[in-house]
Amino acid sequence: SSAKSSDPLGDLNTMLKGDMDATNALIIDRLQSSIEVIPKIAGHLIEAGGKRIRPLLTLACTKVFDGDMTKAHMLATTVEYIHSATLLHDDVVDESLERRGKASANQMFGNKPSILVGDFLFARGFELMVETGNMRVLDILSKTSRFITEGEIRQIDIERNLKTTEDDYFAVIESKTAALFAAACEVGPVIAGVEDDIVNNMREYGHNIGMAFQIVDDILDYTAQEDRLGKKVGDDFREGKFTLPIIYALEQADEKELLFWQTTMIEQDVADGDLTTAQMLIEKTGAVGRCVELANKYVEKAKLCLIDLPPSIIRQKLSDVADYIVVRAN
Amino acid sequence: SSAKSSDPLGDLNTMLKGDMDATNALIIDRLQSSIEVIPKIAGHLIEAGGKRIRPLLTLACTKVFDGDMTKAHMLATTVEYIHSATLLHDDVVDESLERRGKASANQMFGNKPSILVGDFLFARGFELMVETGNMRVLDILSKTSRFITEGEIRQIDIERNLKTTEDDYFAVIESKTAALFAAACEVGPVIAGVEDDIVNNMREYGHNIGMAFQIVDDILDYTAQEDRLGKKVGDDFREGKFTLPIIYALEQADEKELLFWQTTMIEQDVADGDLTTAQMLIEKTGAVGRCVELANKYVEKAKLCLIDLPPSIIRQKLSDVADYIVVRAN
Repeated sequence: SSAKSSDPLGDLNTMLKGDMDATNALIIDRLQSSIEVIPKIAGHLIEAGGKRIRPLLTLACTKVFDGDMTKAHMLATTVEYIHSATLLHDDVVDESLERRGKASANQMFGNKPSILVGDFLFARGFELMVETGNMRVLDILSKTSRFITEGEIRQIDIERNLKTTEDDYFAVIESKTAALFAAACEVGPVIAGVEDDIVNNMREYGHNIGMAFQIVDDILDYTAQEDRLGKKVGDDFREGKFTLPIIYALEQADEKELLFWQTTMIEQDVADGDLTTAQMLIEKTGAVGRCVELANKYVEKAKLCLIDLPPSIIRQKLSDVADYIVVRAN
Repeated sequence: SSAKSSDPLGDLNTMLKGDMDATNALIIDRLQSSIEVIPKIAGHLIEAGGKRIRPLLTLACTKVFDGDMTKAHMLATTVEYIHSATLLHDDVVDESLERRGKASANQMFGNKPSILVGDFLFARGFELMVETGNMRVLDILSKTSRFITEGEIRQIDIERNLKTTEDDYFAVIESKTAALFAAACEVGPVIAGVEDDIVNNMREYGHNIGMAFQIVDDILDYTAQEDRLGKKVGDDFREGKFTLPIIYALEQADEKELLFWQTTMIEQDVADGDLTTAQMLIEKTGAVGRCVELANKYVEKAKLCLIDLPPSIIRQKLSDVADYIVVRAN
């Protein structure tokens, strides 16, 4: 077996180039509307790039079972639209200024169009998956969309709440992030018609990399270099989001540190230098290390979900993708 | 044939009581979520009542063809959820203070949960219609949902824009209002399996009463008594929405009146008494009369769509509903 790739997403992109090109074309094509501002706003977000990891997973998880790639292009597009719709609404909800290294859509075009174009993307995604004619896929992605919104709402509850537990956090990220990864990896096997055990394994694979992905994202919000993150470092800190690094740092906090978190995260009294202090405390208390360790556990679980698949280069790359998700954190 | 009823919606509600009860139960039941705030916010809007005219139409348009009423309950619920989702998002977009005679959800619970609970309702509606297992219905309602969002976005373009034409206005209301009425009346015949000509007629019936409904709504925004409207009179005026009464009043405006509309609707310089002036101008220029006349044309078209249906009491009530929609304006 070949050495582990340092860029498995890039490798998958290359291996699935024709399918990824077709998907990217469909993503752009279905933004078209008689309302000019729709492709403009949606395009502003979608063409800013992003890694397109979710549609790529849908393509890979269809290809690996020799499924219908035309349907995979539609489903990959639906998955990207659902994701983009949640980003547009998130950025309104969080009053975010930046996304993917550019001004956010709400910042650039206003809240109204951002909300409504999010709705458009969501509806258009449903239109597209109806075209696949597969009722089970419709069931998966409609339930997933609903579950995502539940996660977003649950997240509001754990803002500025010192009592947020690990379990609260896991419930939020399972719903707001891991669910779409799970669905992205499940719909391909479903349209390929493989047996339920394998479908469930692929869903679990997606779930586990999704959990790892969000934990790493929440680490990066404190540790990343801004130019690589594509948004402001410390957004979660300023928004008072009790993500895992904070939950772990709080567990180890002395009285003075507790007061710091109380002042900044609860009372929103944030002064210059407080983000640096927060970053330092998260390192010092070992919170980052614990988060990485936990993310790695999800990665290992994800890789185990692939062992019943026949060996193939795509299977190997999917396994490498799982590893790569945590590598980002370092 | 019996005398025309003065309350055809009430009559249909009575005739379809079992189905309407089942639908109302489903509407409440499917708001349930592990996130407590969801039924609270969605219930705040949905239990405030509203006329439930759309789900009632779905039930009546299924019953009249002897379709599967269990599926009709699901579709009626989906239609009400899509409608409710758009209301939640509209009220955020318009910063509305009231809805159905109560504080609006955004006012009471904040913008964040209103946006996200709107997303929840939309996704939950899709989940429900997937349960019908009817792909054509999924196609209709996903396209309709997308078309509604296009109408909402188009509406932004005609805010505070003196050049808004009748055609601009028709395009907006077809999309934001008539499309859901059309779909509400189309899905029943589809699940009943009637021939395409009849399905199309029912769709056209819904479209035409939807057009009349919105025109009347836009009249009422200037002419209604506040306690009957359930929201503030003059919202459209304050928000600078170029609805049909304004478009017609502008056509007849002299220079002084043009200046008045320019100052209030474009420059947002609205003083005490300006709403009264606007109401007076709309009456004086005959704009209200022209709007009612046009709404009546849509009503006549709607009634013509029903003539190929076998005579039945439900057919008669659907015809009376069309008339009733304009009666509201008087």
